[in-house]
Amino acid sequence: MSGLAGVIAGESAICTCGLGNGLNYRGYDIADLALKCEFEEVAYLLLNGELPNKSQLEGFRKDIIAGRELPQNVKDVLKAIPATSHPMDVMKTATSALGCCEPEADDFSDQEEKIKRLLGAFPSFLVYWHHWHKNGKEIELASDETNIAGYILERLKEKTPEAVEVKAMNAMLTLYAEHEFNASTFANRITASTLSDIYSCMTTGIGTLKGHLHGGANEVAIKFVLQFDNVEHALKEVDAIFARKEKIMGFGHRVYRNLDPRSPIGFELARELKELPTSDPKLFDIAKAVRDKVRDDKGLPDNIDFFGGLIYHYMQIERLYYTPLFIMSRAAGWAAHAFEQRANNRIIRPGSEYTGPAPRDFVPMEKR
Amino acid sequence: MSGLAGVIAGESAICTCGLGNGLNYRGYDIADLALKCEFEEVAYLLLNGELPNKSQLEGFRKDIIAGRELPQNVKDVLKAIPATSHPMDVMKTATSALGCCEPEADDFSDQEEKIKRLLGAFPSFLVYWHHWHKNGKEIELASDETNIAGYILERLKEKTPEAVEVKAMNAMLTLYAEHEFNASTFANRITASTLSDIYSCMTTGIGTLKGHLHGGANEVAIKFVLQFDNVEHALKEVDAIFARKEKIMGFGHRVYRNLDPRSPIGFELARELKELPTSDPKLFDIAKAVRDKVRDDKGLPDNIDFFGGLIYHYMQIERLYYTPLFIMSRAAGWAAHAFEQRANNRIIRPGSEYTGPAPRDFVPMEKR
Repeated sequence: MSGLAGVIAGESAICTCGLGNGLNYRGYDIADLALKCEFEEVAYLLLNGELPNKSQLEGFRKDIIAGRELPQNVKDVLKAIPATSHPMDVMKTATSALGCCEPEADDFSDQEEKIKRLLGAFPSFLVYWHHWHKNGKEIELASDETNIAGYILERLKEKTPEAVEVKAMNAMLTLYAEHEFNASTFANRITASTLSDIYSCMTTGIGTLKGHLHGGANEVAIKFVLQFDNVEHALKEVDAIFARKEKIMGFGHRVYRNLDPRSPIGFELARELKELPTSDPKLFDIAKAVRDKVRDDKGLPDNIDFFGGLIYHYMQIERLYYTPLFIMSRAAGWAAHAFEQRANNRIIRPGSEYTGPAPRDFVPMEKR
Repeated sequence: MSGLAGVIAGESAICTCGLGNGLNYRGYDIADLALKCEFEEVAYLLLNGELPNKSQLEGFRKDIIAGRELPQNVKDVLKAIPATSHPMDVMKTATSALGCCEPEADDFSDQEEKIKRLLGAFPSFLVYWHHWHKNGKEIELASDETNIAGYILERLKEKTPEAVEVKAMNAMLTLYAEHEFNASTFANRITASTLSDIYSCMTTGIGTLKGHLHGGANEVAIKFVLQFDNVEHALKEVDAIFARKEKIMGFGHRVYRNLDPRSPIGFELARELKELPTSDPKLFDIAKAVRDKVRDDKGLPDNIDFFGGLIYHYMQIERLYYTPLFIMSRAAGWAAHAFEQRANNRIIRPGSEYTGPAPRDFVPMEKR
């Protein structure tokens, strides 16, 4: 009962995890999808059930690219919210504002159009707000980059990304895109179940992902790694943490007991990225040593967030943007679940066990 | 399993409904609370577990009044979103924007302060946006009205409300304030369960309430009543609807089989409001006749939304603002549940029954 752990809350044809087959999207193994596809193919697969052929992918990509430009109203909203805003709140506010400007049809007949719009717009929300408030300039939202992974990197840093960075970003977007009835996805399904609009489903997802028990673990993981000067220092601190019976973020997982199938992929990506001239390869060595020690001493495998944080760090992305990147990825999963909920809907309304006071007589103000 | 109906999803000490005792908040009967308290007392009760004494109420009220003024950033956001925005999207966007400006502390130590701020700000979001976009003017957010009910009416219509209107608004805010693990409240608890902030909990609640299977039923109910010229016309149409096996919004309820305990209160409030010089008393007669016929012919009792719509209509409130009023009320319940979840938290993460394709081999692009 606690946290609905083990409770089957509905049917879904989108994803399996923790069932002995690793992590599959629509039946395809995550390792194939992360390394052989770009994120757009995976988003298409999640939303439509099948991988796109070339012309389907081109159409899908074209619509997403068209979604990069923002209405002036949304730009004005992004200018109006302060530079000190939490980037997750920026993403949520902009998503909600876009819903004010371009509402979904009441019968949801444009739901596919709206999610492509949003997949295009999510990176724009972040880069527009970032450059306005952090660099004092209005950035162009057009770019020659043809996919979301390249677009994020190019517009955020205003330079053409390295091929290895685009490869890693594509893989990261794919690895984080979907994970069955996790908290943000399930909350998003409840929003869908009242027949609310897709923007509201997305803001529920974003608001739920913001909590540090859900998104944000990779931010904590890299902060942990960054505090050490060398491997010896790190291993000593891990021993001290074990002695204090504290946890290290990025290890263990509620549905994966033995192995997070995303972790070996993240490990390889980090290994490739450490070769960039801007990367400090020592961080990889420290992370690897910590991973091995936690596994060997405690039997706890690392999850995707442990090397995930290092991957984004090697791409020189600000730490508070890691969870907004998670949105840009998981939105595909949220939408797939919202559409699935809509297609066979019943409002989600559980009960509770009452633990409060028994019925009692009203007490008027003068007797309180 | 479907819609989690009958599934106990957690413990709660806040509310009982459908357990044979009508509807109780913290053990107190809804009929007492709706007619003997102002909404501020009920909000305090939901949040703190006990009714406030006079000095507690004064302090609570003072903090809510202080929350009426909005930061310039939020005003700019409200100006930036279009006049055509759905009012629920306006409320959600402004709530999210306020969270950008005045974030909750990471340790939630200011959670009570933040919810009082929000209870004060919710009416301001609506009236500021309304007057700017509908009347082309910037409205003052200060008012001599000392409670939320009077403030909403006075600032929206810019005239001192009648006593019967303030009484009815107080009662309506109380009647809609809390209802156990309904969809918006449960979704809001999931957002709380990842340890996200209170603004995110509220935007999840708002986005979920927006769906017409949840909020909005009173809007549909009054639209139904308004289409008739007289009682005979209405009764004939009800017969026609029965013949077509269609439903009438505002009847039946998932947890109340025999009687929605809020309905008789709403009925009396509507009866009082029909005496206002601006009210068309015929609408009450039509609504009463429809209620009696549906009950007698089908055994279906009316729920709060049926006369609820008429109450707001008699107050001359725009129909699309009924659900934003629901937010101003239910926010107290959402926050009480969010705080309860935080106090004994485990992330809410159910499972699903997989109905999708079995594991399958990856198909490269050229073979699709």
